[in-house]
Amino acid sequence: MNSFRLTPLLRRQLIHNTTSYKTPARRLFHSTSPIMSEKLKPAARVSGRRQDVWSIINEAAAASPRQPIVNMGQGFFGYNPPDFILAAAKSALDRVECNQYSPTKGRPRLLKALADAYSPLWGRQLDPNSEITVTTGANEGMLSAFMAFIEPGDEVIVFEPFFDQYISNIEMPGGKIVYVPMHPPAEGAIKTLSAGEWSIDFDELARAVTPKTKMLVLNTPHNPVGKVFSRQELEKIAAICVKHQIIILSDEVYDRLFYTPFTRIATLRKEVERITLTVGSAGKNFYATGWRVGWLIGPPHLIQYVSAAHTRICYSSVSPLQEACAIAFEQASAHNFWQVCIHDMTQKMTRFNAIWDELGIPYSQPEGGYFVMANFHKVQLPQDYPFPPHVAERPRDFKLAWFLIQELGVAAIPPSEFYTDANAHIVEDYLRFAVCKPDEVLEDAKERLRGLKKYLKE
Amino acid sequence: MNSFRLTPLLRRQLIHNTTSYKTPARRLFHSTSPIMSEKLKPAARVSGRRQDVWSIINEAAAASPRQPIVNMGQGFFGYNPPDFILAAAKSALDRVECNQYSPTKGRPRLLKALADAYSPLWGRQLDPNSEITVTTGANEGMLSAFMAFIEPGDEVIVFEPFFDQYISNIEMPGGKIVYVPMHPPAEGAIKTLSAGEWSIDFDELARAVTPKTKMLVLNTPHNPVGKVFSRQELEKIAAICVKHQIIILSDEVYDRLFYTPFTRIATLRKEVERITLTVGSAGKNFYATGWRVGWLIGPPHLIQYVSAAHTRICYSSVSPLQEACAIAFEQASAHNFWQVCIHDMTQKMTRFNAIWDELGIPYSQPEGGYFVMANFHKVQLPQDYPFPPHVAERPRDFKLAWFLIQELGVAAIPPSEFYTDANAHIVEDYLRFAVCKPDEVLEDAKERLRGLKKYLKE
Repeated sequence: MNSFRLTPLLRRQLIHNTTSYKTPARRLFHSTSPIMSEKLKPAARVSGRRQDVWSIINEAAAASPRQPIVNMGQGFFGYNPPDFILAAAKSALDRVECNQYSPTKGRPRLLKALADAYSPLWGRQLDPNSEITVTTGANEGMLSAFMAFIEPGDEVIVFEPFFDQYISNIEMPGGKIVYVPMHPPAEGAIKTLSAGEWSIDFDELARAVTPKTKMLVLNTPHNPVGKVFSRQELEKIAAICVKHQIIILSDEVYDRLFYTPFTRIATLRKEVERITLTVGSAGKNFYATGWRVGWLIGPPHLIQYVSAAHTRICYSSVSPLQEACAIAFEQASAHNFWQVCIHDMTQKMTRFNAIWDELGIPYSQPEGGYFVMANFHKVQLPQDYPFPPHVAERPRDFKLAWFLIQELGVAAIPPSEFYTDANAHIVEDYLRFAVCKPDEVLEDAKERLRGLKKYLKE
Repeated sequence: MNSFRLTPLLRRQLIHNTTSYKTPARRLFHSTSPIMSEKLKPAARVSGRRQDVWSIINEAAAASPRQPIVNMGQGFFGYNPPDFILAAAKSALDRVECNQYSPTKGRPRLLKALADAYSPLWGRQLDPNSEITVTTGANEGMLSAFMAFIEPGDEVIVFEPFFDQYISNIEMPGGKIVYVPMHPPAEGAIKTLSAGEWSIDFDELARAVTPKTKMLVLNTPHNPVGKVFSRQELEKIAAICVKHQIIILSDEVYDRLFYTPFTRIATLRKEVERITLTVGSAGKNFYATGWRVGWLIGPPHLIQYVSAAHTRICYSSVSPLQEACAIAFEQASAHNFWQVCIHDMTQKMTRFNAIWDELGIPYSQPEGGYFVMANFHKVQLPQDYPFPPHVAERPRDFKLAWFLIQELGVAAIPPSEFYTDANAHIVEDYLRFAVCKPDEVLEDAKERLRGLKKYLKE
């Protein structure tokens, strides 16, 4: 058990962390000016939260003795967009109008390219001027949708696990979140099964609806689960939303990465389309999470308000990269790009997940996206392992993540962050790994993960 | 008066406009689906506003018989950033990490470049990690500041004329705006005077303060007035804010374009700096309004909450252009860029404003920024001119703007949009012109404006 003795460096880091993390909210948000006036205090919406998973994992990674860390945590790409897209961005930079304000609803060329790209998927011609609006990434796009429709006290149904930004985005306009958990397959701890086996209890969903339910957030392909909702499941969700006229905000940012048939809920039937806003992301589509170009597609009676909210939030979105995205959509087919996306990511999934098969660690075989959830039930953490308090007080997945960073130098994300406290136990054995990394990074991660062998119980 | 006879085309446009603009709020925001459920209705924050000046002017310009229009309205640049900045953007696009998520507070290189650029102006070393945060343009930066500090019912003092986005940004977190008008010089209708002659009544300002006053928005150099607030004026504003511990949000996006000594309010003294957030804009600094990179500088006890709000709004800002801005700041001095900015814009101001001297139309001689306010008191609009209802119902400056677009093919902005209805009369003779355009565009505008001669009364 020598590897758990504290090195002087680790001890120092732990002591440092212990001190600084003791009251994480205060650490992040305490006053740095002793004479700060009460009058300067922040609004409740930005104060007093506990430290988020991203900063916990990033700070742990920075403090780990196993440098450099292999970062399989955050879902950014470890490689560049293809050359034809970079070339498009560079050529846009040479054009005066592409460096100045774009129309608030988006550049006409991008709106047209989106209409051309999505009309075949919708099975009808989309109107670029009234059914699509461009936003500053999908994130601000979703905020714009919440700002457009949520009055204080309105309720929004969110499935757990959720993308953490949903929560603050719904709370900002005063919305109340009603959570409905997704359940992992019963045998998830002992068998590798399809991510499609994660399920919703539709009676639970029906019970979550109240007269105040204004919106429901769907995410397919799902982060972090990797599930692509089946047509049958979408029909059940849609039936509830049509019946109660609940706006469906469908986060489909991984829409070009599916390994099983993928249905877009807006395309089920006219009554569903009429209440659905579909969210897309150039960052996810084109391997460029830092570009901050997203969009919403939906009926004019919804889109116009999303667009109005976006104007009030960001005014307009980044011009040269909007133009680049327009060109990327225009040229994607000629480069066979969407097929290449699926092919390459499938290869990466297969390559990386081989380590779980080798170790006998079960995982949810992704149906879409670039995340995989592995179940570490079999991994036995040393009883006397010195977790810092801000990790020790969280569910087991935080301890697993901390342990992997410290001992193996591999960063992954503990998914209980994406559940409410009451339901966090559901995923306490899971960790989320992002496979959108170069093959050599995946191989490095696998080699390090072999170090888990000695902690596996039978 | 032949020129005022309606051509068939103009008649059609006017009839079209009359119909479509009759109830502008409803036109923009009416339901397009007759069976739309009451449950799908938008939030109050995005519904029922009257049509904004930008769409009125842009639609008028598109419908004008004088095509192409010379657009001196919106403040976008008619030329590109210099080559060293474009080259920086292109090289950033080749780097994997520059295309992926940046840290939510901004890229370290940009934070450092900003600290290096602004520390000499602050007279002390700024800490890039705690005193600066990068935002998605100055616009979202200001929204982040309001979101960080405004609770429903808190009051924010805003000077008139204001940048129109302030209003929705303050209202979004539930803030109440308390307006204090700036007054044009008494002789503004008959004499060209410095924009510095526009004044605040400091007793009026003092009376605007209540126990609920949380923030005050300052803008210097000022859009649209062109005033650079004097040190003495800033001292008076600061004294009130320090006394009542009101957070000063100083919009200094035109901070590199001043033609008279420019004082940054944060640098007056320690007590002022402690309550001040200063807003900057790469779009304005580097001739790239479509890049959407801005920042706030302030004490850690304020900046940390702005950063927290920004994370919840946009998560992070556009990565390759942040990197380009970092390099632009790093290399600005070597290219003598800040001096070139002032030199070139002064030349453009002088070149363009010659037309007012020629016509005998007085204007406010700008002390900063790239806008000029000309006073059209002497311009006599034909009594029977057919203004569409949505223009006829607005103050005289809207009619002046409409007339210039239709008759001369020059677009300018009516500044009463930036006043409350009660104070709109203050600027009903003014129009705002943006001079950040190529010299040939300025000359074209001047030639067209000579058409005003026949409407000048003695």
